[in-house]
Amino acid sequence: MRGASLSKNHEQWLRALHRKKHRREEKCFLAEGFNSLGAALESHLYPLRELIVDDGHKDAVMEVAPRGLPVLICSNKTLSRISTEETPQGVIAVCSERAFSLGEIEVSAPCTILYLDRISDPGNLGTILRTAAWFGVRRVFLSSSCVDPFSTKVIRSSAGMIFFVELYRSVSGDEVFRFAEEKKFRTIAAIPFGGDSLRRLGRASRNIILLGHEREGLSEEIRTRADLAVSIPGAGTAESLNVAVAASLLLYEISGEI
Amino acid sequence: MRGASLSKNHEQWLRALHRKKHRREEKCFLAEGFNSLGAALESHLYPLRELIVDDGHKDAVMEVAPRGLPVLICSNKTLSRISTEETPQGVIAVCSERAFSLGEIEVSAPCTILYLDRISDPGNLGTILRTAAWFGVRRVFLSSSCVDPFSTKVIRSSAGMIFFVELYRSVSGDEVFRFAEEKKFRTIAAIPFGGDSLRRLGRASRNIILLGHEREGLSEEIRTRADLAVSIPGAGTAESLNVAVAASLLLYEISGEI
Repeated sequence: MRGASLSKNHEQWLRALHRKKHRREEKCFLAEGFNSLGAALESHLYPLRELIVDDGHKDAVMEVAPRGLPVLICSNKTLSRISTEETPQGVIAVCSERAFSLGEIEVSAPCTILYLDRISDPGNLGTILRTAAWFGVRRVFLSSSCVDPFSTKVIRSSAGMIFFVELYRSVSGDEVFRFAEEKKFRTIAAIPFGGDSLRRLGRASRNIILLGHEREGLSEEIRTRADLAVSIPGAGTAESLNVAVAASLLLYEISGEI
Repeated sequence: MRGASLSKNHEQWLRALHRKKHRREEKCFLAEGFNSLGAALESHLYPLRELIVDDGHKDAVMEVAPRGLPVLICSNKTLSRISTEETPQGVIAVCSERAFSLGEIEVSAPCTILYLDRISDPGNLGTILRTAAWFGVRRVFLSSSCVDPFSTKVIRSSAGMIFFVELYRSVSGDEVFRFAEEKKFRTIAAIPFGGDSLRRLGRASRNIILLGHEREGLSEEIRTRADLAVSIPGAGTAESLNVAVAASLLLYEISGEI
């Protein structure tokens, strides 16, 4: 319904979407704020199901909401209860999760894909998605124990850019390497030390960048099966870089090559 | 005292150090975990004042603690109350804040400095410090309304690398440009769009990279006074990059130039 008021029951259901289990069951997630809304309206990868808006923002939201999309109105106070932000932005989009599968991918050259092996911090995952979108990377594979990409923290850190990235979930190492072989992708493992210098990375038009867990890095299996391992040359005292920083440097270098 | 037990009063004093105001008054801050301790022991930029350790880690800490440094012992439960970590790591270092001033800087060429204009997120600041340390950048200037660099969130995000970076606080735009002129630094403003491509940044051995607030960017004054403005070429849909990602790309490009 357009402009109906939000029921108490529905509020409960929305708040339960803060829990991963409930998101999984309902196959949907919450995205807060106008940035996310704009991205969701533009991209269509994760379709909008309904919008929740407070009184103060209903006119602005009604203006952009497509015909037929339910818009539910509530008080500022109610919205704060549904929101996970310290200062809620007045609108929350309910969007559909969607499962992409490797079999459907049609590859155009050049193409870069990220494979994230057990990334555990939502801020890191969100920042990686934002950076991927910046460099035009449309596909990100996630291993089975990555943090849930549809948590509000990930979406916030992605600055809404999650809506422009196809997320492939629970992708095993085996599947990645089989995909890479079939579709002729080069696989590049990012490791903190001992790899080839990122600055001397040769060209290839199809690349899969492999990045691992914040402390533990890539699993042994993935590291050894990759076509090459690269490290970021440093001059200083730090032992490692943040994984989102490492991802961005690889994406920058590779997007300059092709 | 070495190996004395922690008093209730002292616990109160330590917990008050979570507040910026108290840190400022006492001129010290808390750094948690063995990474930070190792960095603090190695660097000496922010001298250790005392260590707080729980029963389970006292032997490990006594082994590395310099003679004369007070080590206070407490229960695991007490340490959890002082800690801001979800899973405290058994040791907390109390370190001295130190005020570095621009007048003392002796510049060796090549040299890169960061100037951070109103960076507000502690995770971003910490990640920038960690990346700076990786690329051998030893000096970071902070504008007056940057987030407090000695909050535990910043220190955690820096992975202890804050101990290798001289922090110059409340540095105004005027001071930066006067310093740059005197010491013959090139000033480079990072802007989301419309600057020269980062990939075509010419060489200079002395650079100051200017980075601004997460949403608002650099102040007008700083942007217009900089020698040049650069943007990171992107192919995608994102409107901007995370500021710590932008910082890392500039540092990577500049450290390859010199």
